[in-house]
Amino acid sequence: MSDPSGAATRSPAGAAVRATVVTYEAGRVERRSDLVAAEEPLEMRVSVEQEGRRVRHSVAVTMRTPGHDFELAAGFFFSEGIVTSRQAIWSIVHCQEGEEPNVVDVLLAPGMAFDPQRFSRNVYTTSSCGVCGKTSIDLVRTVCPARPVGRERIAREVLTGLPETLRRAQAIFSRTGGLHAAGLFDAAGKLLLRHEDVGRHNAVDKLIGRLLLDGELPASDRVLLVSGRASFELVQKALMAGIPMLAAVGAPSSLAVELAQELGLTLVGFLRGGRFNVYAGEERIAA
Amino acid sequence: MSDPSGAATRSPAGAAVRATVVTYEAGRVERRSDLVAAEEPLEMRVSVEQEGRRVRHSVAVTMRTPGHDFELAAGFFFSEGIVTSRQAIWSIVHCQEGEEPNVVDVLLAPGMAFDPQRFSRNVYTTSSCGVCGKTSIDLVRTVCPARPVGRERIAREVLTGLPETLRRAQAIFSRTGGLHAAGLFDAAGKLLLRHEDVGRHNAVDKLIGRLLLDGELPASDRVLLVSGRASFELVQKALMAGIPMLAAVGAPSSLAVELAQELGLTLVGFLRGGRFNVYAGEERIAA
Repeated sequence: MSDPSGAATRSPAGAAVRATVVTYEAGRVERRSDLVAAEEPLEMRVSVEQEGRRVRHSVAVTMRTPGHDFELAAGFFFSEGIVTSRQAIWSIVHCQEGEEPNVVDVLLAPGMAFDPQRFSRNVYTTSSCGVCGKTSIDLVRTVCPARPVGRERIAREVLTGLPETLRRAQAIFSRTGGLHAAGLFDAAGKLLLRHEDVGRHNAVDKLIGRLLLDGELPASDRVLLVSGRASFELVQKALMAGIPMLAAVGAPSSLAVELAQELGLTLVGFLRGGRFNVYAGEERIAA
Repeated sequence: MSDPSGAATRSPAGAAVRATVVTYEAGRVERRSDLVAAEEPLEMRVSVEQEGRRVRHSVAVTMRTPGHDFELAAGFFFSEGIVTSRQAIWSIVHCQEGEEPNVVDVLLAPGMAFDPQRFSRNVYTTSSCGVCGKTSIDLVRTVCPARPVGRERIAREVLTGLPETLRRAQAIFSRTGGLHAAGLFDAAGKLLLRHEDVGRHNAVDKLIGRLLLDGELPASDRVLLVSGRASFELVQKALMAGIPMLAAVGAPSSLAVELAQELGLTLVGFLRGGRFNVYAGEERIAA
């Protein structure tokens, strides 16, 4: 879609989109072309074989940066407990081959079931009148495969260097300033995998989805770094993937800290400028 | 819930929670008590009278910072188009009076209906195989009351001063570093209303909910400032509330720019350090 007025031009396949912008700075006005981070909806569907027929459900719609949609769907399905292994996924396809492939269909392996009721219940709701942080933690405990087993320790000096490594690798962010990033590191501080997205949870889902599709879960002895804050949801995703350490450039929330403490994840916050705070699992950090 | 190990102590009513943290900086290790932003799930329900009976539906569960839950529910219901006026809400109550009031029930006025099917469709899904940015924009166009009518202009110098005003008013952020903020200003730069939350969309919903409950919507001639980035969802919320200008400290996404351009909202990004970018609706900014 192109707009003759010189407005934002959509390029569905790209992670950045060109827009006309007016910049004000110190009394100076400048009209120029700039890049903004691409955002498009993605609908995720699941297909199962039932009595010889293919039955399809719409699972979720998320606003995301186009690209790595299969990773995003795989990671989302895994984080939400819809699939628990690579083998559960038969194939992933774009529903529509065309200019705007914003629907992906995850076909489950023969014999695998999808229960829409059970899935919607997983989204933190309980039948009783009493949803709370404790309920949410208990729910993660029931769907989480195991406590993270990683015992390898990461040195403080390695940890403080991770944000700069991730930032240098952030190709789209440096052009738009508008993307969250998630990076996976080994204990020596080597960047193994990274993904970017307008949604922080999407960046993490893309990363976990890639690991799932490559048969590399659980990702023990790895460190997951996120560019923003550490919420309950991100700790949950790390736990589902068996990643023993989550580090965030920003602040953690109270429920993120509680979940990390209860399920044995190392949680680091405010990792920037050569300093950091440890909120849980200090034993995985070496002097 | 108190943990004898000195771990995070939950205080459901508060917006900040005390946690034990280990701080590393320049080789120094310090163990101290610190505050983190509170995060708890909130389940939002809707109750309608149907043939003399009260029928209740669970609408959504969101992770939020406790406090101003009625505003959050009212703002969410309004932003999502479930209610379109103050009069549609009969009352809002906490479902359970107790220690963890994490369920709110919005009772609609007599004669008001709630269609769960229609609501779930509103969440960007279409029956055809082709969800895209255009579909999302069209959907907002159908539920949005009108194009914002505000014609009052805001001076550049006033605009550049807003982030500092909001930051000085951010009580919880200054203690935890972990909260998003939303502030409503008049054209002279006076802060009229502000809310904080671990979720940026929640902070905006709380603010819009307060306006709705006070009968102050549409909020023409106002400026909404958010501490983070400007996504499609935030532009949508501003439009629903009739707010003619959304300013963000961070970057906008492509779909936020497109929606603002198509529906006539002024969108400002990177508003910090005395400078800003205008992506749409430049006519509302005065030299």
